Amino acid sequence: MKHSELTVPQRLQALRDEMKAQGLDAYIIPTSDPHMSEYPASCWKYRKWISGFTGSAGTVVVTADKAGLWTDSRYFLQAETQLADTGIDLYRLMLPETPSITDFLKTELKSGDTVGYNALTYSILDAEALAADMSKKGIKTDGSKAILDKVWGDRPSIPEGKAFEMPLKYAGKSTPEKVEEIRKMIANADAEYTVLSALDEVAWTFNLRGSDVTYNPVAVGYSLIGKDCVILFMDDAKLPDDLRKRLESDGVEIRRYDALAETLKSLPENSKFLLDVAHTNAGIAESLPKGAEIIPGISPANTLKSIKNETELKGFKSAVLKDGIAMTKYFKWLEEAMAKGEKVTELSGAGKLRSYRAEQPLFLDESFAPISSYGPHGAVVHYTPTPETDVELHPDSLYLIDSGGQYLDGTTDITRTIALLPEPTEQMKSDFTAALRGTIGIAMARFPKGIRGCLLDAYARHALWDAGINYLHGTCHGIGHCLNVHEGPQSIRMEENPVKIETGMVMSDEPAMYRAGEYGIRTENMIVVKDDIKTQFGEFLAFDTITLCYIDTRLVDKSQMTPKEIAWLNDYQENVYASLAPHLSEEESAWLRNKTLPI
Amino acid sequence: MKHSELTVPQRLQALRDEMKAQGLDAYIIPTSDPHMSEYPASCWKYRKWISGFTGSAGTVVVTADKAGLWTDSRYFLQAETQLADTGIDLYRLMLPETPSITDFLKTELKSGDTVGYNALTYSILDAEALAADMSKKGIKTDGSKAILDKVWGDRPSIPEGKAFEMPLKYAGKSTPEKVEEIRKMIANADAEYTVLSALDEVAWTFNLRGSDVTYNPVAVGYSLIGKDCVILFMDDAKLPDDLRKRLESDGVEIRRYDALAETLKSLPENSKFLLDVAHTNAGIAESLPKGAEIIPGISPANTLKSIKNETELKGFKSAVLKDGIAMTKYFKWLEEAMAKGEKVTELSGAGKLRSYRAEQPLFLDESFAPISSYGPHGAVVHYTPTPETDVELHPDSLYLIDSGGQYLDGTTDITRTIALLPEPTEQMKSDFTAALRGTIGIAMARFPKGIRGCLLDAYARHALWDAGINYLHGTCHGIGHCLNVHEGPQSIRMEENPVKIETGMVMSDEPAMYRAGEYGIRTENMIVVKDDIKTQFGEFLAFDTITLCYIDTRLVDKSQMTPKEIAWLNDYQENVYASLAPHLSEEESAWLRNKTLPI
Repeated sequence: MKHSELTVPQRLQALRDEMKAQGLDAYIIPTSDPHMSEYPASCWKYRKWISGFTGSAGTVVVTADKAGLWTDSRYFLQAETQLADTGIDLYRLMLPETPSITDFLKTELKSGDTVGYNALTYSILDAEALAADMSKKGIKTDGSKAILDKVWGDRPSIPEGKAFEMPLKYAGKSTPEKVEEIRKMIANADAEYTVLSALDEVAWTFNLRGSDVTYNPVAVGYSLIGKDCVILFMDDAKLPDDLRKRLESDGVEIRRYDALAETLKSLPENSKFLLDVAHTNAGIAESLPKGAEIIPGISPANTLKSIKNETELKGFKSAVLKDGIAMTKYFKWLEEAMAKGEKVTELSGAGKLRSYRAEQPLFLDESFAPISSYGPHGAVVHYTPTPETDVELHPDSLYLIDSGGQYLDGTTDITRTIALLPEPTEQMKSDFTAALRGTIGIAMARFPKGIRGCLLDAYARHALWDAGINYLHGTCHGIGHCLNVHEGPQSIRMEENPVKIETGMVMSDEPAMYRAGEYGIRTENMIVVKDDIKTQFGEFLAFDTITLCYIDTRLVDKSQMTPKEIAWLNDYQENVYASLAPHLSEEESAWLRNKTLPI
Repeated sequence: MKHSELTVPQRLQALRDEMKAQGLDAYIIPTSDPHMSEYPASCWKYRKWISGFTGSAGTVVVTADKAGLWTDSRYFLQAETQLADTGIDLYRLMLPETPSITDFLKTELKSGDTVGYNALTYSILDAEALAADMSKKGIKTDGSKAILDKVWGDRPSIPEGKAFEMPLKYAGKSTPEKVEEIRKMIANADAEYTVLSALDEVAWTFNLRGSDVTYNPVAVGYSLIGKDCVILFMDDAKLPDDLRKRLESDGVEIRRYDALAETLKSLPENSKFLLDVAHTNAGIAESLPKGAEIIPGISPANTLKSIKNETELKGFKSAVLKDGIAMTKYFKWLEEAMAKGEKVTELSGAGKLRSYRAEQPLFLDESFAPISSYGPHGAVVHYTPTPETDVELHPDSLYLIDSGGQYLDGTTDITRTIALLPEPTEQMKSDFTAALRGTIGIAMARFPKGIRGCLLDAYARHALWDAGINYLHGTCHGIGHCLNVHEGPQSIRMEENPVKIETGMVMSDEPAMYRAGEYGIRTENMIVVKDDIKTQFGEFLAFDTITLCYIDTRLVDKSQMTPKEIAWLNDYQENVYASLAPHLSEEESAWLRNKTLPI
């Protein structure tokens, strides 16, 4: 019998047998890969394999006689269904009666017991926190037992996709230049080495892209950078000759993917490592040489990558133009298809949009699974249509589509909400306008250089809060350059994040409102941080909105907006028209003219 | 020769002799007392004694051959003057060339050396950070050497002011009730004891007030609270019989002030202490019994104290009414005195205001040294007039007065900026309006329950940032109830503070702008957090502005304000008039009517 044919109870039994053999009293299986990726490759979907639960977030804990899955409210229903009869109990996060995983372990285990986990799937910080909490009851932790690799017999291999060159004409900065900047930051942190473990940092630093992870054009690898070394840990099969030669001529030494641990161990004793302890796996910490000191900090490549150079910014402007053309064609097609009574579903619509994007030059893929959502589905924050959930669009409600493209010259992320019904209700208009005023509030912001993003979050929420509305996700995330559509280290959101907003950062701007059971509304643009005025009170920064797609002004209640907001909106619409029209047919252009008239 | 007559170099020499005798290679003297008070009593002004520097912030470090004072930009000029010829170098904080104190120590000392300090003047957190940083170079730290107590021969004794009863009719909650609430929070934190070391927490918990500290009606003491004990460490001489009897009948055990350490040492081994490590002195940590565990957290009394009960809130409303009467009388007097050409100075004006406050029932004292500042002095953020700096008010600029009163039923804090010149300039109006819109922005805020204060800070700065202006201090601080005018744990400011804003908190609302060399502008009101609407998106909170004093609308540029802001201002002015008029003479009332007409 193939392992993949085992039932979940059989998998649990196999795990328990191995736990017993290895002297472990509990085992934790989080949703994480060695690179702390948003989308782990199949070989690292341990939690899905052990539990059958397919949600994007959740942690399984197994003891000799109990098993539980901890997940958040997005997945309560799905987890209930998928865990039925598996022997795994559902622990609903954030409910008052739900114990934390560590409280559960402290209740189930006794002093002297051992909790195992795979250090490659745990961040250094989380592993330390787990150990500290467990030690309060005399329970030991052991990250060295990757026993699922043994139990999961037909586990897929590590992705073998080909990497390819990110040409300098799009990257704007060579690998040697990037390595020099990283080295400066290592030295500034009083360290000697850093390990790049995030796949997008590896891709950015070495000007390569890959196809190992859905939606993220990255290749599986690590890197070690020190004063005298630049090592890329990436398997031979991934590297085409041209790319390998260019890397070697850039002074990059290439070693096998699995050679990282031995390389780290061979470094001089007492070396100092600048590591992002929240985003570096604990296995790396355990492989450091004797006496090594970890200096915690943001990974230099992460910071450098977030601040786009002129070439990258030029690429983004090209990418949003292409995206704007595709979005315009799609909305025109959609309007006409619906007018003709053709059947359009969430999925078929998203497919059509993909085809318009795919017509654009340098298109690689979508940057995430499109959130194409009709009516009540729009209110499900992380909804993505599947064949099971797919519904037809009708002229009775709102349609929200959040999508993006990966182009070799830039990554895009855009959301528009349009009225499919001829006469939007007053509530729809009021809701749409409050959320849009948030998008505009961020877009028009001027703020002192050096502040953290959370200080600007209220600009996005002001009109919504005034109306007694709130949304619980972030407002702005970083966007990679032909890389992950969600990147750090900066953000604008309610949660604290000490990273400063800096000139050259590219982010989303996506305030929203979700009326459960009715509809969701979000107008998301991409923004670029730019230098603004300098006064006796210091330097100020501002944002450029670069996304080019009309906003459905039939949903706008002008009376709720300030004159400045109205002016911004009219300017925006005019700019959308002026920028896109030269790239559209006469008919498309006339259609867009009508959509972009001033309010 | 009395010690107080020693010159600073002689004091330094005495300290160095003692350092040598005790085997210390450096000694740190911060500005702090064992209670981490904003205003240390004379006996704890070690840093002032050793250096002669009288600013409110600064740290002296002495080695065998060097001595330095680290202070911030407010005090650069003053420190330069006061340190001249003392042998103490000035280290200007925040300048790029200035080493941190620990970097200085790591440069001056060698491995094996010892840095001494008085643990009573260091927080647990700071002491730990110092030890961790010093250990990187093998330097030891020793907080057990309070050698300045020896060197400073005629050091004043610990304050002996009398404590007095805070009547239940103003406190609203009895000591046993407060102790029960504290015990619940200790248990919730999984701890067994807490130590109250902040003097305002002691005063609040035991419903007593004192006169040991300027402006803060507190009495020097500590408290230890556990499941089975409530001990107040306060010297006999402080406690009048009535108060002592009431405390004893409330189940409070009273011990000598200096009995805290021995009491802590006598507690059961392995006890768990909930301690605010940032605000509890390291001497307390060193006195804990063997195996004691410190559970870091906000002191329960600090949290409870910040959320005012109905009786306290009623008292605040009475206090702001009295304050409003005094402010109105003062501004009328000032206007008339200046019209008559009488000489009024910053100090004499502040004195007059004090006299009006003193006429009010239950007045105890001012709540801080009034910032009575004319023209350019208004732009010096922490300016307080002294006989040396005092200037006459002229009808040529703006006058800013920030002041407050301690009344038995509440503490006040108010700032108004008025035009002394007949025709304010456009720049003055524009600046005043931008800052006032910040005050109104906070006043009108509606926000989700559970958010941190920093998320609201942009409401205070929006109009200022739009104008390229910023101020670097906080926007809102907590205000004690007949206690410290600055209290925590909450705040609204740019810096991160994890404390949530909760219903019942009383705070200042004081956005500002400072035009160096010209004037400063600040409109500061007191606000109370209240429950607002509840929607499908959750509970929302809002603020009530309770301060009652007219705003000088001659400085307002209506064209820069939104209709909502104008309505708020007109409503506010009308409410000021309606609330104060019944308590004013006919003449005063007519004068105020004129000041509060709608714009």
